[in-house]
Parts: sequence; structure tokens; C-alpha cells
Amino acid sequence: MAVVKLFGAWLSPYVFRVIWALKLKGIPYEYIEEDLSNKSPLLLQYNPIHKKVPVLVHDGKPICESTVILRYIDEIWPQNPLLPADPYDRAVALFWIKFADDKLYRTEGEEQQAVVKEWLEMLEAMEEHVLIGGKKFFGGDEINMVDIAFCMVAHWLGAIEDAAGLKVFEPHKFPRVSSWIQNFKSVPVIKDNLPDTDKIVAHLKRLKEMLLTSKLN
Amino acid sequence: MAVVKLFGAWLSPYVFRVIWALKLKGIPYEYIEEDLSNKSPLLLQYNPIHKKVPVLVHDGKPICESTVILRYIDEIWPQNPLLPADPYDRAVALFWIKFADDKLYRTEGEEQQAVVKEWLEMLEAMEEHVLIGGKKFFGGDEINMVDIAFCMVAHWLGAIEDAAGLKVFEPHKFPRVSSWIQNFKSVPVIKDNLPDTDKIVAHLKRLKEMLLTSKLN
Repeated sequence: MAVVKLFGAWLSPYVFRVIWALKLKGIPYEYIEEDLSNKSPLLLQYNPIHKKVPVLVHDGKPICESTVILRYIDEIWPQNPLLPADPYDRAVALFWIKFADDKLYRTEGEEQQAVVKEWLEMLEAMEEHVLIGGKKFFGGDEINMVDIAFCMVAHWLGAIEDAAGLKVFEPHKFPRVSSWIQNFKSVPVIKDNLPDTDKIVAHLKRLKEMLLTSKLN
Repeated sequence: MAVVKLFGAWLSPYVFRVIWALKLKGIPYEYIEEDLSNKSPLLLQYNPIHKKVPVLVHDGKPICESTVILRYIDEIWPQNPLLPADPYDRAVALFWIKFADDKLYRTEGEEQQAVVKEWLEMLEAMEEHVLIGGKKFFGGDEINMVDIAFCMVAHWLGAIEDAAGLKVFEPHKFPRVSSWIQNFKSVPVIKDNLPDTDKIVAHLKRLKEMLLTSKLN
């Protein structure tokens, strides 16, 4: 039997994307928690370019980058498909997956004002373009890869707001996003596999303090 | 018969990615040149999120983002495949396509030092990881989507260096990349469809002057 291993970190939404995909497909796997402040030689060997989690190892061969891993999982295990069958609908889904990924990338290491702008643009795009037509999820009644790509909005954004002491997501301004978050978090595989919000907030606050201290020293 | 239209701009490497893919597949299409300083209402309607070229319109339906368009073209017209058939090889190809895209994105609007760093990291990755094993192209003897994704290195980088008055690519330091550029530019579809280097340099110099003037005013 094929051996599936996942190198991850408990805090990373990119890692949870892969965990959910594997669980939605019903694929058993071995999870290896990485200490991101002291990465294992195996992780560095498997992902020499980015040196990041998640890395999926299937039959000894590594795959890196969460969106690439999701595509691979969907091709290898076609049950419970994570992308639409129609090529045009699939292209639209891939457009939004790339959108979510690019937006998130642009929030990393930026000044607070720039970060808030990116988050608001992401929320507006979801509200006005992605979650239209009264659908429960991006693709209709079932969760798919686009929902998984936007996961940061559903769970991590609140913790980031708490840790940073700011408010970006005002539910009354984004009613479709609010419903979608509820739908997303009601899916058993998602609900049962989410990192603890308090732990994320505490971690982010520690990180912020460390950054401030290193700037002052 | 299906109608294929491409909204482009003569300078854009992202547009040329799509032109080459269509020509490699032998798909006839109508090309519409956009004036990027005065975009058409149709372009804004087709790509309301990014308002950018390229946009491919197939049977009246728009597809945006060059890498998403390339995937769509490869699915709709399977002749002369642009991705490996094996799922693992395909995941590796998609990893590098994302890498090239992310790197290029990071060079936009950055300070010169940061841009040079990104270009060097791209060249090093190509030399040490992508073009290994004495292959003519990424996938072996035939050009594929990864080669197309790295096109900036083959043709636009030289013009950017000229316009900015700097040197990033030293051929003796990147012998594999040098051979690949020759191979890439020998493919008839590429050779016959490349924007004029002098025109690119002149355009970039004008752009640089306009930016400087606007900063001084």
C-alpha cells in the first residue's frame, strides 16, 4: 500500500488545506509536526527551494506548495472531487484559488495598513464575485478547493485581528461571507480539524513581541 | 466553430505565454491589442478583478490569468500536450510554474536591489534544479508549460537590464540557462513570435522617465 506522509505545523492554514483534502478523500496518512524554528533535515531535503511546510510525501516522492498538493491529491484520489468537472468551471475555480493564494502572500511581512487593504479586497471579492447566487459553497452544495483556498478568512483572520488589535471583518458588511464561514465550519471534516483560536492568538502575540524586541535591540 | 479571442498587449510576456500555447496547439484566434493606458470597456468587463491582459475569450466566456489560461488551453485542446502525463511529474511542473510566477510578481514595483535578488534566485533555481540532467527543455526534448512560464529569462530580462543599466544574467555563471535560452528561442513558434527587443528597451526607458518625473513633481 502506498505510504502518505504529511510534514506540517499546527498553526499553518496551508497545512490544514492539505489535512482537509486528505480527510475529505478518506486517505490515511502519517502526520509529522515540524518545529519551524528548527526544521528537520528531512523537510529541508524535501523542500530545498522554499524550506516550508506543507510537504506531502507519496511513495517516497515529495510534493510542495499547498495548492500544487491539492491538485495532486485530487488527481490521484478522484473520489469526492475537489474541482468542478467542466473545464471552464475548473478554470474559474483555479482563478479564485490563485487569487486567494496571491492575496495571502501579499499580507506576509507587510505594514499593517497594506495588510488591511489586502484583506478587505479579499473579503470584497468573496462577497461580490465568489459567493454569488445563494450557494452554500463556492461550487454549490459541496465544499471544494476554492472554499479550502479561502480558509484563512473562515478561521485565521479572527485570530490575526485579536493579536493585532484591529477589526477588518465586519459581518454586517459581508453577509455572504458570514454565511459561508458558518457553512464552512459546519462541515464535519473542517469542524473536527481546526487549530485552537486561543492558541493561535497567543502564538501570534508572542511572535509580535519577539519582532518588537528584536527591532528595539 | 468555436471562436477564440485573445486580449493582449505587445510588450507583455504573460500575453506571449498564451500566444505561444495557442500556436503550439494550432488554434486560430483573433488578437485584440489593448492600450494599457486606456483599457477597453470589454477588457474591464471580462477581467473586473485584475483589469489586466491576457484575457482569453472562448465561445464568449472569459478566462483570466496566464497560467490559468495555459491550463485551460491544454485541457480543451489536448494535442501537443504542455504538461507531463504522469501526475507526479505534472505536480513538479506545476510547482515550477508557480515558482516562476511568484518570483516575477515579486519583481514588480520593488526597489532595484530587491528585484536583482529575485532575478538571481530565479536564475539559480533554473540552473541548479530545473534544467538538470542535460535536457534540452524542462520536460526533455519538447518545449512545455514550464519553459513557457520561465520566458521572461529568455527574452525580457536582457531588455530590463538594458533599460535599467544593470547586469544580472552573466552567461558563464549559468551555463545551463544559457543553453536553454538558445534552445527556447530556436523553437519556430517562439522565434517567430517575440516582441522586438529595441522596442521593449525604448518603452521601459520611457516608463522609467515618467516615473522619475512623477516622483519629482
